[in-house]
Amino acid sequence: MEKSGISKATLGRLPHYLQLLRELSVDDVPYISSTVIAKKLSLGEVQVRKDLNAVSGAGKPKVGYKTVDLIKSIEVHLGQGDMTNAVLVGAGKLGKALLEFDDFEDYGVKITAAFDCNETAIKYNNSIEILPMKDFDLFCRNNNVRIGIITVGAGSAQDVCNRMIRSGISAIWNFAPCNLEVPDGVLLKQERLALSLAYLNNKLSIM
Amino acid sequence: MEKSGISKATLGRLPHYLQLLRELSVDDVPYISSTVIAKKLSLGEVQVRKDLNAVSGAGKPKVGYKTVDLIKSIEVHLGQGDMTNAVLVGAGKLGKALLEFDDFEDYGVKITAAFDCNETAIKYNNSIEILPMKDFDLFCRNNNVRIGIITVGAGSAQDVCNRMIRSGISAIWNFAPCNLEVPDGVLLKQERLALSLAYLNNKLSIM
Repeated sequence: MEKSGISKATLGRLPHYLQLLRELSVDDVPYISSTVIAKKLSLGEVQVRKDLNAVSGAGKPKVGYKTVDLIKSIEVHLGQGDMTNAVLVGAGKLGKALLEFDDFEDYGVKITAAFDCNETAIKYNNSIEILPMKDFDLFCRNNNVRIGIITVGAGSAQDVCNRMIRSGISAIWNFAPCNLEVPDGVLLKQERLALSLAYLNNKLSIM
Repeated sequence: MEKSGISKATLGRLPHYLQLLRELSVDDVPYISSTVIAKKLSLGEVQVRKDLNAVSGAGKPKVGYKTVDLIKSIEVHLGQGDMTNAVLVGAGKLGKALLEFDDFEDYGVKITAAFDCNETAIKYNNSIEILPMKDFDLFCRNNNVRIGIITVGAGSAQDVCNRMIRSGISAIWNFAPCNLEVPDGVLLKQERLALSLAYLNNKLSIM
């Protein structure tokens, strides 16, 4: 079961398929077809067939997928069982809001700690601590952190980004409203929330 | 100068063009070409030409755009001078984080108030009040609110959405992790932050 690059839209639907499949009893439903899944989730059949094909190849004609295998394929693509560790830098309002999102783990990513320039560590909630930046590099190396989330202001985002990369992080999710530079081989996802609003406003204006 | 539906990527670059053009003295630079703008902003010439073409038509050969006209066209497309009023419902961490974003106004959207189920009004910062939900409908109607931002939990998001639509709102930006149903003629932008992370994680896993 190899992982492959699949579209964001497909990724978004995988947790729904997974939830449905887990709710079924594998004894009662040893095989399931994309048609049945599409019907149960009120989704288009073609879409479901494409999604499942992307994660698990084509099902058997007239039978569909072996339910246990399909569950495993989806879990692999969601990175579950093989969580990727992430850290967040900038524990302001936005940072804390992200720490409270509980659906990141559904997608195989676990925020293992947050960091802020404050010098003292605080237990933020049951599972996450907010740590001082002096502990950053060691924490990342000791915990095999691969994703860094930047929720600091635009003024310090590039510095934080550089430090993340020096600490072995290879994927950056940036919320600061500025363009970051990263070397080849480092993934960067620039989140520009204002753009969603701008887009909505532009569409509204021509309605 | 008609507004048209332009891509999110183009919209994202418009504030940069605008900032550059406003910094120029119109007396010194009565005309400007996409080539010059591209160079000053370190952007690709083809991209800049396409962007400006989308908002202001083709420039004059060898001369470019009349600087004042180009500024006006961009302002119109960003909805500036003609701010769209928005309200936010759900003044938790994420909601408050959005209230602090200062770049929404660059894109022509002004969050005029936030609402929460608390019964008392609080002055949140210099420009925004957090109001009780009982005042919602009247506020929206009196202030010609057209965009509603939903930052409540998934359990109450559809109720909030329905109430927004009843109060005359015609574009919804939803952060709750659930799919909302809206009638025809209402724009909906579902913001699913976890998907960005999922996408990054998936790309990371195949690097």
